[in-house]
Amino acid sequence: MPIYRPATVDLVSTRSILSVPTTKLANGATNKVQDLVAVEEPLQIRIGTHNVAITMRTPGHDAELAAGFLFTEGIVAPGDIEKITCSRNNAVVTLRAGVEFDPAGSERNFYVSSSCGVCGKASIEAIEATGCSSLRTDTLRVSEAVIRTLPDKLRSAQKLFDETGGIHASGLFTSTGELLYVREDVGRHNALDKLIGRAYLDGRLPLSNYVLLVSGRTSFELVQKSVMAGIPMLAAVGAPSSLAIKTALRFGMTLIGFLREDRFNVYSGASRLG
Amino acid sequence: MPIYRPATVDLVSTRSILSVPTTKLANGATNKVQDLVAVEEPLQIRIGTHNVAITMRTPGHDAELAAGFLFTEGIVAPGDIEKITCSRNNAVVTLRAGVEFDPAGSERNFYVSSSCGVCGKASIEAIEATGCSSLRTDTLRVSEAVIRTLPDKLRSAQKLFDETGGIHASGLFTSTGELLYVREDVGRHNALDKLIGRAYLDGRLPLSNYVLLVSGRTSFELVQKSVMAGIPMLAAVGAPSSLAIKTALRFGMTLIGFLREDRFNVYSGASRLG
Repeated sequence: MPIYRPATVDLVSTRSILSVPTTKLANGATNKVQDLVAVEEPLQIRIGTHNVAITMRTPGHDAELAAGFLFTEGIVAPGDIEKITCSRNNAVVTLRAGVEFDPAGSERNFYVSSSCGVCGKASIEAIEATGCSSLRTDTLRVSEAVIRTLPDKLRSAQKLFDETGGIHASGLFTSTGELLYVREDVGRHNALDKLIGRAYLDGRLPLSNYVLLVSGRTSFELVQKSVMAGIPMLAAVGAPSSLAIKTALRFGMTLIGFLREDRFNVYSGASRLG
Repeated sequence: MPIYRPATVDLVSTRSILSVPTTKLANGATNKVQDLVAVEEPLQIRIGTHNVAITMRTPGHDAELAAGFLFTEGIVAPGDIEKITCSRNNAVVTLRAGVEFDPAGSERNFYVSSSCGVCGKASIEAIEATGCSSLRTDTLRVSEAVIRTLPDKLRSAQKLFDETGGIHASGLFTSTGELLYVREDVGRHNALDKLIGRAYLDGRLPLSNYVLLVSGRTSFELVQKSVMAGIPMLAAVGAPSSLAIKTALRFGMTLIGFLREDRFNVYSGASRLG
């Protein structure tokens, strides 16, 4: 059996990784550098002319992603695919002659979800269509010292993580670092929806005076939801995706990544710090 | 302003955490214990009688999740919601008199995605409907020593993670620990779809002789996709959800979590070890 053949090792293409300007703050020192982030872009999967799915993915191996998605979702069986034609952010699948595909049946099988990153909006332009233009710049200013204290505070409030070791959290803090809301869920998008939902039910929206901390990485979806809620600063313990940064820049959000006790990176909106 | 009010701190309910039988293997010793895992169950969100979305979430704060989802997806504005009635795994939202909701318009806005965990299958029963019944028990046996070597091998092959620090991986290994395929993506479901798609295109399905390692946690969705591909053993560096375990038990899959160099937990199918 051929093990780890050449065709399977081209993990790094220029489209899978993007170099972005980053401000690194560590112990009072500031450095402007170029940093590498994973690319996140939507892939539209079609069977012929029928749109089957759109998923936020890292470009590369798009034909495999289309085949694997259609197979694991029960839409095609082994041998059903004649060819897959990929262009930028599109994969068009042609089935073999005689293979039946019922678009209506496929549609019935699918459920919508917030976790796809593009539900309700295929692009940044779709956020704008909802009336969001730009986040306020006059409502929030947070010191570097306060920001560095946030992960410890969130972790202390994470009851479920302590018990199970497997759950995401979102925490909303004041500019002085007081925890207002914390929510946990196996889905990071759900943890954020629960937090924003609490604010919605409390009549507190928009959340222009608060900073949000998420336990994992930041995707387009988390930035999009934060923009909808008017949150001007989003910090994460993990890495941002390319589209998270692009969206933060577009809406004037302060985006922080790799937040630790002694350091963090700023990808957008550094003017709200200090 | 009230900070961290009582209504916001009830993170731990009995429905958010489940105690499950777990076999812990560490340095040759085996211990059977009860371990706590995060609960993962589908929540159906409705506006009146119209199904808007279904998402895999940790039960608790379901009304907030429904409100937050509908708001961040641009379906409701502040003040639009009259009441939210939650029962087990259902949240029914009633809009205020005079608030318009166009189900067709909402449907047009949504895109399907594999990341929702229930796309193409609302439940375990839906997997069975595709013809999957039970995974083979006679095709794979992997030693404890080999399993403990897998995370290092996957990490060595993760080019994108090294560069960006923010990407998930799936790796497929033989019973002797040889790496066959590795795929990376910002979405863990995409990394697995890419890997299974490669096997599909290579005509290798079902993958009855292989063990799969994923870099993060295991959700229902990852187990479901693995079952579809016939993979009898799924190991993860992170924690499993309750529904991942339940699904693994149902289909006779070996499910491993918290995999480290010197130890790991087995939640299902221990007979394939040794």
